[in-house]
Amino acid sequence: VDGRRARGDATRARILREALQIASRQGLDGVTFGQVAEAAGVSKGHLAQAFGGREALQLATLDAAVELFSERVLNPANAEPTALERLRHVCLGWFDYVEGRVLPGGCLITAANSEFRTIAGPVRDRLIAFRQRRRNYLRATIQAVLEERPSRSPVDVDDLVYRILGDEAAANVALFLEDRAAFEHARRSTEALLATFDSDPKASTKPR
Amino acid sequence: VDGRRARGDATRARILREALQIASRQGLDGVTFGQVAEAAGVSKGHLAQAFGGREALQLATLDAAVELFSERVLNPANAEPTALERLRHVCLGWFDYVEGRVLPGGCLITAANSEFRTIAGPVRDRLIAFRQRRRNYLRATIQAVLEERPSRSPVDVDDLVYRILGDEAAANVALFLEDRAAFEHARRSTEALLATFDSDPKASTKPR
Repeated sequence: VDGRRARGDATRARILREALQIASRQGLDGVTFGQVAEAAGVSKGHLAQAFGGREALQLATLDAAVELFSERVLNPANAEPTALERLRHVCLGWFDYVEGRVLPGGCLITAANSEFRTIAGPVRDRLIAFRQRRRNYLRATIQAVLEERPSRSPVDVDDLVYRILGDEAAANVALFLEDRAAFEHARRSTEALLATFDSDPKASTKPR
Repeated sequence: VDGRRARGDATRARILREALQIASRQGLDGVTFGQVAEAAGVSKGHLAQAFGGREALQLATLDAAVELFSERVLNPANAEPTALERLRHVCLGWFDYVEGRVLPGGCLITAANSEFRTIAGPVRDRLIAFRQRRRNYLRATIQAVLEERPSRSPVDVDDLVYRILGDEAAANVALFLEDRAAFEHARRSTEALLATFDSDPKASTKPR
C-alpha cells in the first residue's frame, strides 16, 4: 500500500508540474483536463479521479505555484537571521525567480490575479486570500525590521507594501513583453525601497 | 450601396461592442467566433466574412478598446489647453474610466498585456506596439510640461512614466479583487506624481 501511495504522489506531482507549465504560458484558462492529461501522460479519467473537477485542478495548480515559490524563495528567506535580510531575500528573490524562468511565464499568481479579477468563484476567492496573506507577510516583516531598527524615521508600511507588490506586477509583464528596461527599473525601484532601511544615511533617501 | 455600407458598419460596431464586453470579463481568450456570434446575434459565417479569422477578430477587439479609451479619455485630454492639464486628464481620466466601468473589467489593454505576455504572435506584437506608443505619448507630454515650466528641478521622465503605468497595472487588478484601498492608493500615488509639477512648492515634495 505504501508503494502504491508513493506512486500516486509521484503521479500527482508530475501532473501539477505539467499544469504549472501550461498555466504559466497560457493562463489558468489553459488548465483543462484535455491539455493536462496529454502533457502528463495520464488519462482524463485519472484526472477526474485524482482532482474531482477542472476547477479543483486549477485550485491545486495555484497551490502548487505557491508551494514552488515557497520552496525556492520564501523558505530560504525565512531562514535568514534578521528581518531586514528576510525582507530583502523575499523581495529581490522574487525578481530572481521570475528572471530565472523557474516557470516559463514568471509569477503565475501575479498573472492569475489579472486573469481572474472579474471571474467570481473559488479561484478568484483563493487569489484574494493569497493576496491578503502575502500582504500580511510583508507588513509583518516590515514591522519586524522596524523593531530591529527602532531609531529610523517613521515609515509608511502600507505604501511600502503597495510599492513592492506594484513593482512585481509591472515586472511580471515587462520581462515577457521584451521590455527588459522596465523589468530592471522595477527591480531597482524595489532595491531603493529596501534601501530606506539602510543604516547608512546616504542610502536612506526616499525612493525615486 | 451607401445604406448597405452603413448597415454593415453598424453591425461591425455592434460585434465589436460585444467582443469588448466578453474580452473585458473573460480575457481575449474568450473572444471566440462562437461566443461573439451568439452575443452579437450574427452567424459565425458572418464573422468569418467580416473579420477573416479569430485572431483578426481579437486584433480588432484590441483596436476597439484603444478607440474607446481615446473617445472617452485621450481625445478630451488632448483638447486641454496646457500640457500639464493634458497629462493630468489622461492619467487621472484612466482611473475614472476604470472606476466608471466603461468596460466591466476595467482596462482591457492592461489585462491583455498580462494575458498575452508569453503567447508569441500578432496579438502580443500589437500589445508591444501599443505599450511603446503609450509610453511615447506620456514621455512627450511630460517633456511638454517641462517646457511650459522650465524652472523646475530636473525630473526623471523614465521613472515617472514607469510609475504612472505601474499605478495603472496595480489599480486594474485591485479594483476587481475587492481591494478598493489599493485602487485608491494607486490613484493617490499618481496624483502625488503629478503634484511634482505643481508650481506651489509645498505640493512639489517627492512622491511617497
